[in-house]
Amino acid sequence: MFKQDLSAAQSALQGCLDEIMSALPSSEVMAGMRYASAGGKRLRGFLAMETARLFDVDPAHALRAGAAVECLHAYSLVHDDMPCMDDDALRRGQPTVHVKWDEATAVLVGDALQTLAFEILAHPDTHPDGAVRAQLCLTLARASGAEGMVLGQAQDIAAETASAPLTLDQITELQSNKTGALLVWPCEAGAILGGADPAPLVEYARALGLAFQIADDVLDVEGDAILAGKALQKDADAGKATFVSLLGLEAAKARAQSLIDEACAALQPYGPRADTLRDIARYVVTRDR
Amino acid sequence: MFKQDLSAAQSALQGCLDEIMSALPSSEVMAGMRYASAGGKRLRGFLAMETARLFDVDPAHALRAGAAVECLHAYSLVHDDMPCMDDDALRRGQPTVHVKWDEATAVLVGDALQTLAFEILAHPDTHPDGAVRAQLCLTLARASGAEGMVLGQAQDIAAETASAPLTLDQITELQSNKTGALLVWPCEAGAILGGADPAPLVEYARALGLAFQIADDVLDVEGDAILAGKALQKDADAGKATFVSLLGLEAAKARAQSLIDEACAALQPYGPRADTLRDIARYVVTRDR
Repeated sequence: MFKQDLSAAQSALQGCLDEIMSALPSSEVMAGMRYASAGGKRLRGFLAMETARLFDVDPAHALRAGAAVECLHAYSLVHDDMPCMDDDALRRGQPTVHVKWDEATAVLVGDALQTLAFEILAHPDTHPDGAVRAQLCLTLARASGAEGMVLGQAQDIAAETASAPLTLDQITELQSNKTGALLVWPCEAGAILGGADPAPLVEYARALGLAFQIADDVLDVEGDAILAGKALQKDADAGKATFVSLLGLEAAKARAQSLIDEACAALQPYGPRADTLRDIARYVVTRDR
Repeated sequence: MFKQDLSAAQSALQGCLDEIMSALPSSEVMAGMRYASAGGKRLRGFLAMETARLFDVDPAHALRAGAAVECLHAYSLVHDDMPCMDDDALRRGQPTVHVKWDEATAVLVGDALQTLAFEILAHPDTHPDGAVRAQLCLTLARASGAEGMVLGQAQDIAAETASAPLTLDQITELQSNKTGALLVWPCEAGAILGGADPAPLVEYARALGLAFQIADDVLDVEGDAILAGKALQKDADAGKATFVSLLGLEAAKARAQSLIDEACAALQPYGPRADTLRDIARYVVTRDR
């Protein structure tokens, strides 16, 4: 049932992105944008759609918010994969943008995907109330810029040349910026679209985001390189502190599980309507990447 | 008088950017953002302030729109200067971000400056009406993304490997995307902030933008490398078509002048209140870079 819901959301998000991108002028950059935003789990987009459903938001509005966060996420991956950043040649088993095209195209594709995220949110099709659209833009900017995701990426780069490995508090803060903020945003967006208090969903998403990253570190140690579609154990080989290196494998798994329990508990105000969000939380720590 | 107005606008824009950036968490990225957005002519920000003044817009609102477009412009320069793009080591006589820091920082600084542009526009301090803020975000996204500036940058890169030099129509379209769109946007923004019809100002700015680029090509041939603060005649040496190579030097100068006359004529509805905008148009073709 959950797999069907996720699959339906993935199709709907892909359809929405296809429609939006097909309206752009044809160019290598547009081709790269479509390539870079295809596939993936669509976890962020699915979170926007499922949280919005709690407040009976028009599904077409939620879908556009979901498409926007998927563009933002895709931009971050394209730039993160570049030689001067993580230098990854594969993403989801396919050549990365700078490998398939070149570095200049990767810079521009990432830049234009970020722009498109804000363009989607600011467009009247996303919500009839301009104040809601502006609030979506403002919160996405805060989650993704120098106060959020980009700050986390910079902290991650700084950690590579730091004299000592990060402490648990430091890595928790780094990950809450680098990965967490863009998992929290779609949950906040669902509440903004519904004119509802985002606090319970933000609590849910913060726990979910941290569990997600711990599960990622566990997968790096236990995962299957073919399923993951990228080189594993890269962080461990680079001598970087991870949740597994700091906590140990079993304690890391237990911590992820207790965070999932916390995430589910935060959904209590919504009752059984939030069951799919509970499924998402459990999926995050059981997925094979 | 014009020089005083421009200088006052430059100071006000710098003060606004300083205040906004000092609220960001301290990081190498934040330091790079301040560095990359310091200095420059502030032509785009000044255009937002001066067009908004025609409609008695609150100067604090216009200043924030001007600061946003300066962030967007600064992001485009940081990424454009990178080795995989134009590979420039100097900008305004100073080391570029990837030279002073490194390429990873340049990617992140550009990314975060783009985000900040939308964050500034979406914030309630920019206008009390959310629909106005959303419209500012939407129009800036269209001007700067895969339909605007980024499309122009991609067209510029494609031209370098094209089998034949661009025609006058092609280079006019390329420049209208690459440079023109981000000169038109602040003029459109002034009208949006004032709840006015942007059409006359868009006409003004399109002529201004094309004159600006022709003047740039003229400066590349006639300019002083020290004043320009960057290597000149780079385009000519690379065998790229420019307005000067296509039209000849004297005809290019005459074309820029007639575009300035067109730009000034488009301001007719605003009478003498638009005199500073007329001064800006004349400045664009007489500046020494």
